[in-house]
Parts: sequence; structure tokens; C-alpha cells
Amino acid sequence: MEPNDFFTPVADELQIVESSLETNINTKLSILQQASTHLIKAGGKRLRPAFALLAARMFVDDLDEIIPLAVALELTHMATLVHDDVIDNSQTRRGTDTVKSLWGNRLSLYAGNYIFSSSLALVAGYRRQDMISILADTSMKICEGEIIQMLSAYNIEVGLKNYLRRIERKTALLISVSCQLGALLTPASQAEIAALQKYGYYLGMAFQVTDDILDFVATEEVLGKPTASDIKQGIITLPTIYALRVSPHRQQLQQWLSSAQSCIEQADHIVDLVIDAGGIDYAYYAAQYYTAKAKRQLSYLPDTPITENLRNISEFISERNY
Amino acid sequence: MEPNDFFTPVADELQIVESSLETNINTKLSILQQASTHLIKAGGKRLRPAFALLAARMFVDDLDEIIPLAVALELTHMATLVHDDVIDNSQTRRGTDTVKSLWGNRLSLYAGNYIFSSSLALVAGYRRQDMISILADTSMKICEGEIIQMLSAYNIEVGLKNYLRRIERKTALLISVSCQLGALLTPASQAEIAALQKYGYYLGMAFQVTDDILDFVATEEVLGKPTASDIKQGIITLPTIYALRVSPHRQQLQQWLSSAQSCIEQADHIVDLVIDAGGIDYAYYAAQYYTAKAKRQLSYLPDTPITENLRNISEFISERNY
Repeated sequence: MEPNDFFTPVADELQIVESSLETNINTKLSILQQASTHLIKAGGKRLRPAFALLAARMFVDDLDEIIPLAVALELTHMATLVHDDVIDNSQTRRGTDTVKSLWGNRLSLYAGNYIFSSSLALVAGYRRQDMISILADTSMKICEGEIIQMLSAYNIEVGLKNYLRRIERKTALLISVSCQLGALLTPASQAEIAALQKYGYYLGMAFQVTDDILDFVATEEVLGKPTASDIKQGIITLPTIYALRVSPHRQQLQQWLSSAQSCIEQADHIVDLVIDAGGIDYAYYAAQYYTAKAKRQLSYLPDTPITENLRNISEFISERNY
Repeated sequence: MEPNDFFTPVADELQIVESSLETNINTKLSILQQASTHLIKAGGKRLRPAFALLAARMFVDDLDEIIPLAVALELTHMATLVHDDVIDNSQTRRGTDTVKSLWGNRLSLYAGNYIFSSSLALVAGYRRQDMISILADTSMKICEGEIIQMLSAYNIEVGLKNYLRRIERKTALLISVSCQLGALLTPASQAEIAALQKYGYYLGMAFQVTDDILDFVATEEVLGKPTASDIKQGIITLPTIYALRVSPHRQQLQQWLSSAQSCIEQADHIVDLVIDAGGIDYAYYAAQYYTAKAKRQLSYLPDTPITENLRNISEFISERNY
């Protein structure tokens, strides 16, 4: 089964979301329009819209009302991606064209703000204060996650708790909210909404753990970015946390991971040591653990074909590219 | 009359706003808390809360319901200030401690997002979709303003229309929205809300034109930042636009203003040429023009002591530090 097959029950609606993403970025400033829609045109899995639509489809047939939410969720996600792109100084310092690099930096900042505000405008249309509160709260927590990640860079003392808090905020919360809000707009019961919210949360955790594994083992083609990009930025994820604890070469690992320069220069060696120490296997078990928790939530939901889909997605998530 | 006297009718409420600003930034991440409250502790005129409170006081005595809005407006403003602080590359390149400068940059980005989301959470509490829509729309326009300013830097072709669009988005809109939303939460009529919205708009325009004058003529102590900081960043404001058109030395001005290096190196000379060309006087008339337009809106409002206050504020704005 291919990933896109999971979304077949909402394929038509995802098409509408896709075309709505661009039309909802609507500024007369052509450079802002270009920058903001650039990422949209680059495509993507549209996971968050898909989860909102699937969650709603469990309870209603007509998903027209869910479309603006689905678009807003993807825009919120994109705003965080654009802000992630705000180039760190070390990268821009390599460049020669300084005005251009300054311009790129600032434009990313404001384009991210613009996209987030566009998403807000869409959610405001629902006239539901609870949805805005959830979105504001999620956005604050995403910021916290980014800062925890920033503070944890090159920090070899970082433990499991820090890692889980980070990926919860970075990934799990917005997927969780996607499931929750999708169901919130239907006649689903409180218990059903809560189960979908938790399903999204655990699935998001599994998804990010798997993403962090792929950063070690996948090819650049699969990733769409250089392999070991986390290590190169000093971001210590689950496989590394495990290796730092159990590797016979942990002193060497500690030394390399503490400095920005050696994280870049020794990235390949660090990756080898982490894999040799069993870091990938450990993380793989963690992903399976969260997948199991996600699946368990489905038992509180009506037994529909969509429920089966959600079960299959969770299994696929932790098996990606293995 | 001192600026603070204008706000005497809402002085008690402004006190509450002041103490609420910090308590509304509420993260367990101490560094984010510190960064986000740093700007609050630095103080400020709290213009936006003051206008929201004054606008509401025209129609109701009890302003308890307006306080969260007033806090949210100041937080929205602060979020834009924090994002303005995201250090441009040329500045950080001067530094020696690269990890530290990287860290400052990213933290400003996420702290700004965090503060904006906090403000959103507050406004969500009103359960009024129109308020969220207005806030989202304003936020998008503020982004556009920043980008127009960015694109216009070092551009000697920039004209009056570009300048007015820029300051509208940078300053006038949020002051306008402050007056509008303050009145929106009271029994004010649509016409009265519209008059206050326009008053805030024209006052904001006058305020920013005057701010741009002060950047040329005020001391560093008054400004709280280096004099001629606009010129040094290649930001072409009204006095310069005028001088570029009429100065006998406009070719020299054009040459200097087109390059980042000469904007910094020749800043003092540029300031002298702009003043000699009558750029300050021209901008001063523009500020008076907007002040007159602001005052005219007050005739559509009930004749209360607050109306008189708003009239005095508008006069003071365009006479600041002359």
C-alpha cells in the first residue's frame, strides 16, 4: 500500500485543499505572493489536511465545511517551515551577496508571519472561539518546541524527556490538533474527539521519531535534504541520545557532538557510531511503541472503513522506508 | 501638557494593562519568558492600549472588558518590534561570538511568534469572530508594510505613494484598529466606530511622519536609538523623498542613498542635505495635514471630555519635540 492510498477516501477533498492553498495567499505584493506560494508549489504530503478530513469523514459525508480548516492547518504548518528557513548566520556568512542574503532572511520572516495570519483569517471564519484558542495555544507550544531544540543543540546532556517534549511540540501537537478540530466540526462525541486527538498525538510522535531515524539512514533523494542534517546542526535526536549512553565510543561521540565544527566535519563518523551502537533500532522500537498507542485509541471510535484507514496509516508510519 | 496627561482618564486601567502584560506571557521556558518580557520591562508609551481604552471610555464607564483587548494590542505591537530586532546579517557579521549571535536571532523570531500567539489567545477569549478577522487582516498588512519597506531600501526612485503605504501598514493600521476595537466592545454606533477607526488611522499617519522627522532632528537620548538610523539602513522617509526631488545637491544625495556603504559613511552629510532642502518642513506640513484630518473625525463623535482629550493628543502628536 502506498502512502497516498491511505488518503483515498478524502482524495477529492484533498484536491480542493491543494488548489485552495494558493488562492488563500492573496497579496498584491508579488514578491510576498511568490515567496509564500513557493513552498506550496513544492508540494508535500498534506498530512495535516488529510487527518482533519479523515477525522471528519468518520462522522459526516459532506466535508465542505472542513476544507477551510484543512487549508488553515497546512498553512500553519507551512508558516513554521518558512520560519525554520530563516537562515542562520553561519550559512549566510558563506554567501558573497550580502544584500541578497539579508533580503532572503527578512522575507522568510515576514512571509511566515503572513502565512500564519492567513491561516488565522480562515479559522476566524468559523466563528468558533474554541478553535482559535486551540490554534493560538498550539502555536505557542510550537514556539516553545523550537526554542527547546535551539537550547539543546550541541548539548550532550540532553535526555529522553527533553527529546520527547521537543518532538511533541515540533510535530505531534499540530497533527493531534488536526484530528481534533476535524472531528470538532462534526457531531462526534467529546469522547470520540478526545480519542482522535490522542490518536493524532501518538501518531505524530511516531512520525517524528521515524523522521529522525530517516535523517540517519535514508538517501538524500528520499529526504529532499542532505543526510545527517540534524547531526550537522548539533540537533541530538533519539538514536544519538541512545548511542551517547551505550556506545563503547561514547567519549568520542560526546567530544564530537559538543562542537559545531566537529558536528559538521565528523558527521559521517558520528552517524556510523550511532548506528553501530544500536541507536536506530532503539528509536525504531520507540516509534512502534507510539504506533501501538495510536492504534489503541482507535478502539474508542466507531468501526468504519476510515478507522481501518487510520490503523493502516499508523502502521505504515513506523515502517516507512525500512 | 505632558503626553501622559492625555491618558489620565484611563490611567488606572493603563496600570492594570501594565501589570497584565507580563502575566500574560506565561511560559515555563525561562529563556523565552525572559526574552518576551524584556521588552515589556523596558516600558513604552502604551499608545495602543491607551487608544483602545479612551475610545471605549467615550461610551462606557467600566473598562474591565476592554483590558484584555488593550493588553493584546500592545502584545501584537511588541511582537512586531521583536521581529524587527531579528538581527540583519550585516550587524551580526561584526560580532565575534557566532553561536551567541545565531541564538539571539532565532530567539527573537520565536519570541515574536510566541508573543503574537499570546495576544491571539487573549482576543479569542472575546468569542468574537470579527475581532479575530480584523487582527488577522491587520497582521497580514503589517507584514506587507515591512516587505514594502525592505524592498524600498536604497531605492531613490521611491515616491510619496510608496511611503504612505509603508507607514500606513507599519503604524497607522494598528492604532486605527485599537480605536476601532475599543469602541466595538461598547454600545457605540457603526458611524461612531467608523469615525474612531479613521481618527486612529490619521493620527497614526501623523505619528509616523513625526517619528520619521525625529529620526533626523532628535537627540539619541530622546530617540532611545542612534540618530539617522533610517538613513543608515537605507530607509527613505518623507523628508528624504522631498529632498531627493528639490535639493540642489540631489545628484549627490541619489548617489549616496543608493549604496549601503555610503548610507552609513555619509549619514551625517545626508541628514544635513535633507534638512537644508527643507525636507523636515515639508514632512512637518504633512504631519499637520493628517492631524487636521484626525481632528475632523472627532466631529462625528459625542462631545465628551474624552473627545477633547483625543483632540489634544492629535495636536501634540504633530508638535512633538519641536
